[in-house]
Amino acid sequence: MTNIGIGMIGGGYMGKAHSVALNAVGAVFDTGLRPVCEMICTTTEAGAAEKARTFDFHRSTANWKVLVEDPKVEAVYIASPQETHLEIALAAFALGKPVFCEKPLGATLEDSRAMAAEAEKAGVTNMMGFNYIRTPASQLAREIIASGEIGEVTYFRGEHTEDFFSDPESPATWRTTGRSNGTMGDLAPHMINAALGLIGPVSSLIADIETVHKERPGENGREAVTNDDQGQFLCRFENGAMGMLYFSRIATGRKMGYIYEVFGTKGAIRFDQEDQNALWLYNGDAKPDREGFTKILTGPRHPDYLAFCQGPGHGTGYQDQIIIEAKDFLQAIETGQAVWPTFQDGLMVHEVVEACWRSHEQKRWVSISDL
Amino acid sequence: MTNIGIGMIGGGYMGKAHSVALNAVGAVFDTGLRPVCEMICTTTEAGAAEKARTFDFHRSTANWKVLVEDPKVEAVYIASPQETHLEIALAAFALGKPVFCEKPLGATLEDSRAMAAEAEKAGVTNMMGFNYIRTPASQLAREIIASGEIGEVTYFRGEHTEDFFSDPESPATWRTTGRSNGTMGDLAPHMINAALGLIGPVSSLIADIETVHKERPGENGREAVTNDDQGQFLCRFENGAMGMLYFSRIATGRKMGYIYEVFGTKGAIRFDQEDQNALWLYNGDAKPDREGFTKILTGPRHPDYLAFCQGPGHGTGYQDQIIIEAKDFLQAIETGQAVWPTFQDGLMVHEVVEACWRSHEQKRWVSISDL
Amino acid sequence: MTNIGIGMIGGGYMGKAHSVALNAVGAVFDTGLRPVCEMICTTTEAGAAEKARTFDFHRSTANWKVLVEDPKVEAVYIASPQETHLEIALAAFALGKPVFCEKPLGATLEDSRAMAAEAEKAGVTNMMGFNYIRTPASQLAREIIASGEIGEVTYFRGEHTEDFFSDPESPATWRTTGRSNGTMGDLAPHMINAALGLIGPVSSLIADIETVHKERPGENGREAVTNDDQGQFLCRFENGAMGMLYFSRIATGRKMGYIYEVFGTKGAIRFDQEDQNALWLYNGDAKPDREGFTKILTGPRHPDYLAFCQGPGHGTGYQDQIIIEAKDFLQAIETGQAVWPTFQDGLMVHEVVEACWRSHEQKRWVSISDL
Amino acid sequence: MTNIGIGMIGGGYMGKAHSVALNAVGAVFDTGLRPVCEMICTTTEAGAAEKARTFDFHRSTANWKVLVEDPKVEAVYIASPQETHLEIALAAFALGKPVFCEKPLGATLEDSRAMAAEAEKAGVTNMMGFNYIRTPASQLAREIIASGEIGEVTYFRGEHTEDFFSDPESPATWRTTGRSNGTMGDLAPHMINAALGLIGPVSSLIADIETVHKERPGENGREAVTNDDQGQFLCRFENGAMGMLYFSRIATGRKMGYIYEVFGTKGAIRFDQEDQNALWLYNGDAKPDREGFTKILTGPRHPDYLAFCQGPGHGTGYQDQIIIEAKDFLQAIETGQAVWPTFQDGLMVHEVVEACWRSHEQKRWVSISDL
Repeated sequence: MTNIGIGMIGGGYMGKAHSVALNAVGAVFDTGLRPVCEMICTTTEAGAAEKARTFDFHRSTANWKVLVEDPKVEAVYIASPQETHLEIALAAFALGKPVFCEKPLGATLEDSRAMAAEAEKAGVTNMMGFNYIRTPASQLAREIIASGEIGEVTYFRGEHTEDFFSDPESPATWRTTGRSNGTMGDLAPHMINAALGLIGPVSSLIADIETVHKERPGENGREAVTNDDQGQFLCRFENGAMGMLYFSRIATGRKMGYIYEVFGTKGAIRFDQEDQNALWLYNGDAKPDREGFTKILTGPRHPDYLAFCQGPGHGTGYQDQIIIEAKDFLQAIETGQAVWPTFQDGLMVHEVVEACWRSHEQKRWVSISDL
Repeated sequence: MTNIGIGMIGGGYMGKAHSVALNAVGAVFDTGLRPVCEMICTTTEAGAAEKARTFDFHRSTANWKVLVEDPKVEAVYIASPQETHLEIALAAFALGKPVFCEKPLGATLEDSRAMAAEAEKAGVTNMMGFNYIRTPASQLAREIIASGEIGEVTYFRGEHTEDFFSDPESPATWRTTGRSNGTMGDLAPHMINAALGLIGPVSSLIADIETVHKERPGENGREAVTNDDQGQFLCRFENGAMGMLYFSRIATGRKMGYIYEVFGTKGAIRFDQEDQNALWLYNGDAKPDREGFTKILTGPRHPDYLAFCQGPGHGTGYQDQIIIEAKDFLQAIETGQAVWPTFQDGLMVHEVVEACWRSHEQKRWVSISDL
Repeated sequence: MTNIGIGMIGGGYMGKAHSVALNAVGAVFDTGLRPVCEMICTTTEAGAAEKARTFDFHRSTANWKVLVEDPKVEAVYIASPQETHLEIALAAFALGKPVFCEKPLGATLEDSRAMAAEAEKAGVTNMMGFNYIRTPASQLAREIIASGEIGEVTYFRGEHTEDFFSDPESPATWRTTGRSNGTMGDLAPHMINAALGLIGPVSSLIADIETVHKERPGENGREAVTNDDQGQFLCRFENGAMGMLYFSRIATGRKMGYIYEVFGTKGAIRFDQEDQNALWLYNGDAKPDREGFTKILTGPRHPDYLAFCQGPGHGTGYQDQIIIEAKDFLQAIETGQAVWPTFQDGLMVHEVVEACWRSHEQKRWVSISDL
Repeated sequence: MTNIGIGMIGGGYMGKAHSVALNAVGAVFDTGLRPVCEMICTTTEAGAAEKARTFDFHRSTANWKVLVEDPKVEAVYIASPQETHLEIALAAFALGKPVFCEKPLGATLEDSRAMAAEAEKAGVTNMMGFNYIRTPASQLAREIIASGEIGEVTYFRGEHTEDFFSDPESPATWRTTGRSNGTMGDLAPHMINAALGLIGPVSSLIADIETVHKERPGENGREAVTNDDQGQFLCRFENGAMGMLYFSRIATGRKMGYIYEVFGTKGAIRFDQEDQNALWLYNGDAKPDREGFTKILTGPRHPDYLAFCQGPGHGTGYQDQIIIEAKDFLQAIETGQAVWPTFQDGLMVHEVVEACWRSHEQKRWVSISDL
């Protein structure tokens, strides 16, 4: 058992989630590397000190460079705004320090390309945080599809839908300006990553994106909403499968609509994050009068479940996905084996998002290879 | 109570369903007009006689003209192959006889246009058979949307998916040749009709259509499949709502996937024909900590349910939809009030299908008004 | 094909359902015997004439003896109040005419015993109407259990729950007086019949029965409720299985709670009439990491489904159960083979109800054999 | 922020779960008292040292007295076998140290009585670990019932069902001997505690308990199973509600069947731990044609959810229940306010279990007050 000092940049929602995970992961998984919460960085010294106290970090700073350069910080978590990702990651790579980066990778496609390139050049562990894909159920789905258990995939449908802006009178916030804070920038990457991980690369797509509520109440009257509420695209994957993805922040009634359905020549899969402990599997080889979708409750035989619970059906939750991420990151560092999704995978997600915008603006099919 | 003589053309699957419905509808609904099963027409005299016996028709014929012209036949059901629809309908209209036509309307867009035009010219009752839309649950969905109960519709997703050809080794049949027997020709019209009925006219769309299994085992070795297995399109409705529809006969595991979801600014709806006695409604005005989708079981307070059962939750089934169609057709004849969907509505469905093909072939967005 | 004249006694809810079924059954099933709706009997001549017109019967009467004795009436449906069942059935049996009797069998245990004894003595077709058990899904459940597919049954839970009296201020009606109109008399027989049919005879039980709302608003102020709102019992079946049944008319939110769950040594079954087209089956022999309950949608491979629909998942409804009953009754007459449940089975249900009352009153376990 | 030293007795399944919780709870909840994992005790020195390393405890011991008496251990977790609970708890109380005790309270009713009495006498914080009841959904259910939102409760049904012994050929283990390791001793307490917490005290009951598989394969051939596989009871609660509870370890297909349904005069509730992030609520005051069960996904507005996640529907899991327990225990110590369920509540659960055994053996209704 060896300790590894962790530096956390960002003390918001995801900063908290990763901090809880780092506190818990060693007892949950008995990892070879034990994380030591060395330093946390937020925007003010006082705020950082408070977060250090709350999240059990030894030290704090308001200067991320201090954190990255601190000799006791041996690996860096980036949970700060997208605009900061590039510079931080490059600084860490320059020092040969592993980096875990919250999705999306960079603020622009150029940033993402630079980050993926530098990650490869540096040759150090790099990993993306697309947490939902780490549920035992979604890991199982990946295994089932990859093994050919449902045959050749003929169709994929995915959505990432929530409803936090479904009320047209919900006030404007930082989320209603800036392309990267819109639905395509903020929500879509999760499900695009899932699609790429479950089915494989997208070859071409045609997208439609929309700002449904063009104004919202602000502090000084009506404010313009400058990013998108919903978007969708049809696509073909490189393996020939047909696909469709939809993303929305105005999907009234959907709280965590991370949903996918996969049809194959021998079976099918359904998953809905709102009931994240079940994977629905249709086995085309079942006796004809006994066929139907089987609701498989995740359990100790499924990926990463046993560490949380010995009994099937007891269930894991949102925070547990983050703990699994922490375990995977530590393991990647320890073994030197990259764990999906890496920065390169984060870049592929970004490319799909970019292709959607181009397709939407030009109203035509776009090939990913033409980007 | 007045009798009305019915002529049934077609003795197959739908011919049987409509015959059962005509036998039952009077006792179920106590309609003003009572149908008398006067004559049935199939392709052979012997076959027609047998069907007459089985389905309780007085007489039979192998010549549809005999049926249409028979003075005791006062209204005509068309449940024969698509290619025959035009000629039969025009003959009936020429005699001023009401016509009920199974979906789709005509075998070609030109046929459908002619049928809709002649229906209008003749001024007699004409009605399309898109049976699924007549469940109490889907009728309720139409009412809810039309009333504004879920606000402005922002998104619609629909699918008609089955899996009768999901096995690549299922043999070729008459269903695997002829565009009108493919997925876009045979399955898509149901859900397109639903979309038009629930949301309103489509203004533009972009489609992708595919024959996944290009050969199937036939009597003489491998046979080419000349029509489509699956298709999908993105669209915008005239009222501005964004939409997406998907159709498949290879959607492994789906038996009767007539599914739609509607998001509105004040609520949402979900429906799945595989559980046809429930409509899921999300009421955006609910108390914030009590909000969620409510599973409404259809009951006597919902459209057409009470005639089948006094208690809620007891459920109606496939055959009952056809009985409701019969009641509506009889009522339309009796009152002279057209009942949705008419031939004109059938034509609008056909136009969307045609636009899909054009969009698919030209790989571009197509406006319905440009057809 | 031979015609058989039917006499229907009762023009209420069940009288209508059976009349619709008799009109439809020949076209649905192509039965060997074709029912002719010969005569209907209700309490007044005018009412009966009106029902004859509505339900398509040739003649009508207000005197059930006239109906039973009519030479063209060759089989009798009893859908009149329980108190009348005994006398009618005996009159029909005396004339050697087959009898279909709506549940429950007799108004008292003595009545039921006499009816079962006379049915046996007469040696003519006799059948009980416990309609819900005739859904394709519940027929499939019986087959699965009987075949040993889920192994030895270790536990059965059943309920028949509705909520038509859940509101304490719902007015008193004829349903709130008379033991036979209470929950144990009116609702319990359905699920007891299911338990006996699925698992086998009950050997002993202990029951608890309750009138929760002892008064309800009536025409002259508060009126006493003289029968039971809910009841439940623990039991052992003769095959050793442990069981539990619950019945209620005040189960808020339950519309048609005809629900059972069966645990066996090799599998399990779940069914809920509110989603009557699905049977949930757990196969204990499944691969350990793929196990779970499979939602089997009823289809053409399951009992009696194909007559209604060629495609799986299209669904049958309440009225279809009654049509299946009609087919089974006609078939029993034609073949001379008794179809479950007969009057003898109806008597066994009544015995369990009686044992419940005795157990409740004496607050002790009661053996069915001690009745 | 004050530290509090924790001593953990037991390093098994629950020992691990509580250790993970103690590592995480401070970052999740920002508790006033911060737990310091001071010492862990298991049966061997080497094993304890290993657990200390894995679970992040400072020190270890194989002697629980050393742990309890250690001055840095300021509060004690008991997660060791039931037979040890009494002695440990009394030793801790004698030193005025708060105790958290895993369910069930004592190995015998006498033990439980002594523990509850000593807890009261000592006047220090004492709390039971019935973890499942701490999900946000079940906490919400308690609030809803307590507030009268569903009116007067008329019926309660609960079950705790799993299937780890459903295969008759599963080998005998320590779980198959000893009453306290049987279904009534080990599983029943969870759901009995839920029933008491949701509805209130039970007044009388009648139970049936069974060892279905009386022998299982052991190391030396067939071994006798000396405890129970399944049990059930009918009951009345002190507030008059009728109830029924069922417990099984052979309920084929049930993985975590912690299920309850509550009918009230104004509404109803359903919960199933296998989908622990949803509570189903039927609101009897809904518009009649919009009524149905609403699937409420837990979210930030519900108890204890926000600490884990800002968005609704993201979900908590098994481990999170234990973290909530830790928070509640720390808060109880900090504030001096007892948190349900205390040892007194654990005793009431034990009394119901004892009454079940007495009722089963004497085959009669038993009043809790007569124990």
